[in-house]
This record gives sequence, C-alpha cells and structure tokens, in this order.
Amino acid sequence: MSDSTVVDYHPMWEELGLDLPTHDALLGAVGQMFADAYLTQNNRPEGMSYLNFVMSEVHGLRVKELHDFRATGGKVIGTFCLYVPEEIVRAAGGWCVGLCAGAEFGYDEVEKIMPRNTCALIKSFMGFKLSRVCPYIQESDLVVGETTCDGKKKAYEALGELHNVYVLELPQMKRPEDVAFYRGELGELRGKIEQLTGKIITAESLKAAIKEVNDKRRALQRIAATRAASPAPISGKDALLATQVAFYDDVPRYTQMMNLLADELEERVAGGVGVAPASARRILITGTPMALPNWKLHDIIEKSGGIVVGEEMCTGSRYYDKLVPEDGETVEDMFDAIAAKYMDINCACFTPNQGRIDDILRMAKEVNADGIIDYALNFCTPYQMEAFTVEQAAQDIGMPLLKIDTDYSAEDIGQLSTRVEAFLEMI
Amino acid sequence: MSDSTVVDYHPMWEELGLDLPTHDALLGAVGQMFADAYLTQNNRPEGMSYLNFVMSEVHGLRVKELHDFRATGGKVIGTFCLYVPEEIVRAAGGWCVGLCAGAEFGYDEVEKIMPRNTCALIKSFMGFKLSRVCPYIQESDLVVGETTCDGKKKAYEALGELHNVYVLELPQMKRPEDVAFYRGELGELRGKIEQLTGKIITAESLKAAIKEVNDKRRALQRIAATRAASPAPISGKDALLATQVAFYDDVPRYTQMMNLLADELEERVAGGVGVAPASARRILITGTPMALPNWKLHDIIEKSGGIVVGEEMCTGSRYYDKLVPEDGETVEDMFDAIAAKYMDINCACFTPNQGRIDDILRMAKEVNADGIIDYALNFCTPYQMEAFTVEQAAQDIGMPLLKIDTDYSAEDIGQLSTRVEAFLEMI
Repeated sequence: MSDSTVVDYHPMWEELGLDLPTHDALLGAVGQMFADAYLTQNNRPEGMSYLNFVMSEVHGLRVKELHDFRATGGKVIGTFCLYVPEEIVRAAGGWCVGLCAGAEFGYDEVEKIMPRNTCALIKSFMGFKLSRVCPYIQESDLVVGETTCDGKKKAYEALGELHNVYVLELPQMKRPEDVAFYRGELGELRGKIEQLTGKIITAESLKAAIKEVNDKRRALQRIAATRAASPAPISGKDALLATQVAFYDDVPRYTQMMNLLADELEERVAGGVGVAPASARRILITGTPMALPNWKLHDIIEKSGGIVVGEEMCTGSRYYDKLVPEDGETVEDMFDAIAAKYMDINCACFTPNQGRIDDILRMAKEVNADGIIDYALNFCTPYQMEAFTVEQAAQDIGMPLLKIDTDYSAEDIGQLSTRVEAFLEMI
Repeated sequence: MSDSTVVDYHPMWEELGLDLPTHDALLGAVGQMFADAYLTQNNRPEGMSYLNFVMSEVHGLRVKELHDFRATGGKVIGTFCLYVPEEIVRAAGGWCVGLCAGAEFGYDEVEKIMPRNTCALIKSFMGFKLSRVCPYIQESDLVVGETTCDGKKKAYEALGELHNVYVLELPQMKRPEDVAFYRGELGELRGKIEQLTGKIITAESLKAAIKEVNDKRRALQRIAATRAASPAPISGKDALLATQVAFYDDVPRYTQMMNLLADELEERVAGGVGVAPASARRILITGTPMALPNWKLHDIIEKSGGIVVGEEMCTGSRYYDKLVPEDGETVEDMFDAIAAKYMDINCACFTPNQGRIDDILRMAKEVNADGIIDYALNFCTPYQMEAFTVEQAAQDIGMPLLKIDTDYSAEDIGQLSTRVEAFLEMI
C-alpha cells in the first residue's frame, strides 16, 4: 500500500464516514495478502504492473475518481451481481462499481442481524458495510441488488435499512416468459437509473455503452484464449485479478490496459513463454464467484505446482464470454438484446441449468484442463447443490473433479493444500 | 399402528415398490412417536379420535383410497408447497397429496447427491424417496414442485431423475407484474394437469373445487378461532396435526370431520373447558412448516407446561386463513382470483415480506399470546434470515420472542426443553 501513503487519502475516507483505524488495518492486511500471493510469483507478464498499481490504489485513486465524478453530479451504482447490466447504467451517464466483499470483516456485527451459517460473500459485504470500511458502497448513490439466491435476496432487506437499495427481480428459469419478465425488470431499472442520473438513455448512448462494455469483454476474452496454451502465459491468480478489477475500474482505461496485457500474452504464446512448466497440471475452476481479495484457492493450487487455466464463474467466463449484439438501432431493440444476453448467463440460481454443465465441459476441453475443481462457499446452496450435477457430468466424460467447500478464512488452508496436492498428483 | 395389522397392506406396499422391512420399521417408529406425543395427552377432544384413526392408517387406508382411485383412472398430484393450488388439481378431477417428510430417513443416501448442510425438509423428502418408504410419492402420477427456495428449486432437479416432476415458477416479489407472472404459471399448470387427467377444467368444476377447498379452510379457521379462548380447548399439538392431515386426506370427509371437531371445541369454549390450565403460558409459533410427523417443538412446549395457541406457518394459518373469492363466473376470472389469493400468502421467499410481520403481530394479539417462538429448520435460509426481522418487530411491541433453529433429530430435545422452560418462566 506504499502509494497510498504518498497521497494521503485519509481526509477523503473520513469524509466518506469510514472507520479510519479499522480501515487502515484492513488495507494493511489486504496489502500483505496481495504481496504474499502475487508479488512472490515468477516471470509475471509486464502488463500486470497495471493491476499491481490498481491494487496499491484500491481504496485510493479509484475512489478519488468516483469522488470527483460525484462532485460534478455523476452517479455511482454499486452492484454485486452480473445480472445488473452495466450498459444500462453507463448509457444513462452513471458508473458501475462492484462492492467490497471477499474477506472476513465485521462478522461479529453481521451475526447480530443474520444467521451465522450465511455464505461468506453475504457476511462479508454486510460486514464491510457495518464496519464502515468499504469506500465503494459509501460512494454508491444506489445499490442495485437482485434475487439470485435466498441469502442475497433477504440480505438486501437488511442492507436497505442502511443504504439506498433497489432490487431487480431475476426469474428462476430461462423460458421465453422468463426472458420477457427480466426484460420488464430492465425497463423498470432504466426508469430508476434515469431518474437518479437525470439523463435519458438514447439510442446513441446505449449503442456506445454496449460497444464499450463489449470491448471490455473482448479484451478479457483475448486474455482467456491465451490460457489454453501450454505453457500457460499467465498464472490463474493474475487472470483472476484481471477479472476482479473489471468490476471496479474505469471502463475505457481498463480495456486499453487489458488489451496491452493480451498483446503481451499472445506474444508469449507465440514464443512459447510461460509462467509454469508445461508439465504443470492444468485446472479449470468452476463455482461460486471469487470477490476481490479472495485468491485463496488459486493461491493454493499454484503454490502446489498446478496452474489454473480457466474460471467458469461470475469472476471468470460468465462475466465476459458472451457479448450483447451491437446491431440494435432502437433503444427497445437494444434492451431486448441486453435481456437476452444476460439471461444467457448460466448462474446456478436457474432451474434447470444444463447450460452451465455444457459450458464447464466445453471450457475444460478448450483450455486443455487435466482436472476440474468445483469451488463453493459454505452455505451457498445453489452452487453446493449443483456441484453434484457437475461432478456427475465430469465423471461421465472421465474428467477428474475435486469438490471444495470453504470460506474466506485462512484456517483451512493447510487442509485444502493437502487435498489439492493429492488431487494434482492423482491426475 | 394396530389397525394396519388388521388389514394387511403389505401386498399394496410391495406393488408400490416400497422397501418393506424398512417401511415396517418406519411405521413402527412413527407409531411410537405418535403414542408418546399424542396419546399421553389429557382431556383431548373427542373429535381427535378421527385424527388418531387417520394416523393409525397413515400409510394404509388413505393410500388404499389413492390406489383404488388410480385403478379407475384417477390421477394423483404430489406437492410440498402451498403455492400449488389444490383447486386447479381438483377441478380437473385430480387429487392432491402432500409428500412424506418430517423425519430423518435415508440421509446417508441423500448426502451422496446433495450437501450435508441442506435443510431437514429437503433431506427428508429425498430420503423417503431414495429409501422407498413413501407410498404417497409412489402413488403420485406427477409431483408439482416450485421455486420457493434455493434448496427445493435444485432438489427438484435431483428428484426429476427419479420421478415425474413439473416445476411451477413462483416469483419473488408481490407487485402486480409478479401476480400476473404467477397467473401465467397457473395457466401452464392447468394445461399440464388437464393433459394428465384427460379432463378439461370448466367453470362449474372450478367453482365447485374452490368452494370445496374453501370449506376445508373454513373448518380450520373455526378450529383456529377457538384457540384464542382461555383455557385453550385443544392442544397446539392436536391443532397442528389437524392441519398436517389436511394435506393428505379426502377433502369432503376431512372437512366434515373438522367441522365436528370445531363444534366440540366451540362447546368447550362456551363451557370454559380446556386442555391446559388458564395460567399456562400461551405461545404463538412462527416459521418453517412442520411436516408430519414433526411435532417436536409443540411437544417440548406443551410438556414444559406451555400451550401453543397458533401457528403462523404453512402448516398453520398460511394454509387456511385466506379464501379464494367464490363469486367468479368464468374460468379466467376464477384463475385470476386463485392467483391473487395464493400470492397473498406471506412466505419468507418473498422480498420484501412485511405482510408476514403484520400477520405475526396480528395473530399474537388475536390468540392472546404471551410469547412467540420463531422456529426455523437449520439451513432454511429464507426463514432464518427473516427471523431477525421478526425478532425486531416483536421487540418493538414488547412481545417476548425465542428463536429456535433445529432439525428433525431427537438429539437436541434436552437442550431445547431447557431453553423453552426458561422462556416460559421468563414470560
């Protein structure tokens, strides 16, 4: 966090109502986690220096940008989920940010208002809010939640007592009537966002926003494609970080930097340069999203000698593998296209959800995986339940699979390392 | 289970594919549980003899009736949830039955296909199916599931591998567009049921079915109303059993018998006759439904000297406190009325769900409760999360509340008894 000490952001954090001593402690801990997990890696791509910089300024420069944006009347919308289309927010002149989670924080306070056996993602975001250590939620004029799982659905009720929250209803199936229902929800979201920003979405602004967000996805697709090479040109940990930062960063700048990283990775592939020996076991991870700074499983796998070559998760392929068609001419057409694209994301909240199984098997083949690790946060019912279907599908094609249920704590790292090492040896 | 041995149902159970030795053991255990919890009570209403008989024939005579009905071409629809309207099934000539749950059975097999930390209701219904000890699912031509919670939503995918399952999508909010969506789902359900039974729903048949199911609810409302008296004319355990049996029994017969019970209870109230001293602490229970034979909490409370005077649950007021308007003339009008009525049930799966809080506070007043016990099955996220809102609301009106999270096992009965006794002394 050395850069944060060059510019003193404490006055800004104080203005945001953060609990400064606790927040300092948090930044110190995340900085140490980042150093241990990331800066110890060998032969990292040059392009990662941008993401190192972003991490060093994770609650600094980017928050300052949001702060300045809001000072000129800009509106920031905080989200936790892919089903809140960034295109709509941007077309109305707003900015989207992901909210803090990914680390155990403030659980004592959280357990006074929700069950102990709530998944780590939910406990974490509530803990960050209750402990006043998340500048992103403080900079959010509105949090847009969704009904993707029982836990988040009810947690937004609690968050609504503390912050301005709007909940978008996601249907639970993928039939035409469900897509139509979600399309209706997007229409209501449009009204809500336009009212907030005071700007009307036009065909031009929406077309531009679709292009811009697609460009971000295309950059991530380029990075993802290089990971199919052997040796892999980038660690899974670094690729995960790239996706995690996509939720926070300025869109055009981020896209530009990720395209530079992709250029470098493509050169590496052409030159046979990698970050791990070609003999390293190649792992596809699937399951619950990994919010920044949750790098635990990737770190364990890669410190055990494996290499993560893909993530079928919301902080992975689900984020970037599908584009919104860019040929819409009217706002209504483009909203239809957005609704169709987002309803084509295969979250475990849907029933049935064969599309996700198909995605996992396809990706395993595309990235030449030697094995799959199915990752779920404890008490994440949709992914924990679906893990059994994933396991069966992997077994049917003879692909080794390891199921891991965990949380954000460091307590089980030893035990998980043992299991992962055994899995890597076995495959 | 003495009556079951008079008529030998084993050939029927064998024909249904039940695992006979395991099923015999189950019936023996349930019979013993029933004897311990129910037949030890003093001064029970005469009318409970009908429910004693039903329990003695729980897998016997009633299953035989379903068996005979199906032998003549009748169709049986199994459900787990209030949101599958019995009116629609009956109007198409079908019969509805609840499916087995409420006891720990076959968990070893269940944990091979779903997480250990799944709620007891789901593990139980899957365990009954996998162990082949539930004659009701075996007699069900179709199981109609719903998307009320993450666990059930995904469990129906697993059940669909073993049985004929159709899933109705329940929306997650209660706005007009949600009611319209659910109305659409009921239209699709209609088609499915008509196809199954081969009978078209007519205005006459639907009107009759609405009346018939309302009559059942009205009988239960009469019973519920008598529980406001002091002393209470019926134990909570007996009243719970009445509601549990409502899911299984022949509708007109059950209604007739419950009206006889209600007559008796009204006489008791008029004569000041009760099953517990007027000084007994009066408890309203709210939370997760209690599937037959789950009488654990009621048994603990009443053996500790309290009296349960109401249940705000799906096996309680949510089942019977609202009627479908009977003035519809066309099938479409009546479907609208059914959709509106069912969407007015306040399950914790909805967000927001202030209606349930209002119901709890109103009921607590109506039944003159001295305290509320909020009951949730472990890992039942919607009710466990909402328990915090319920607790706050009770606190706001100065009503004592005890939160209990448990499952179907007997292991924590000692500990729960201690907590309940302390609560009864405190209020």
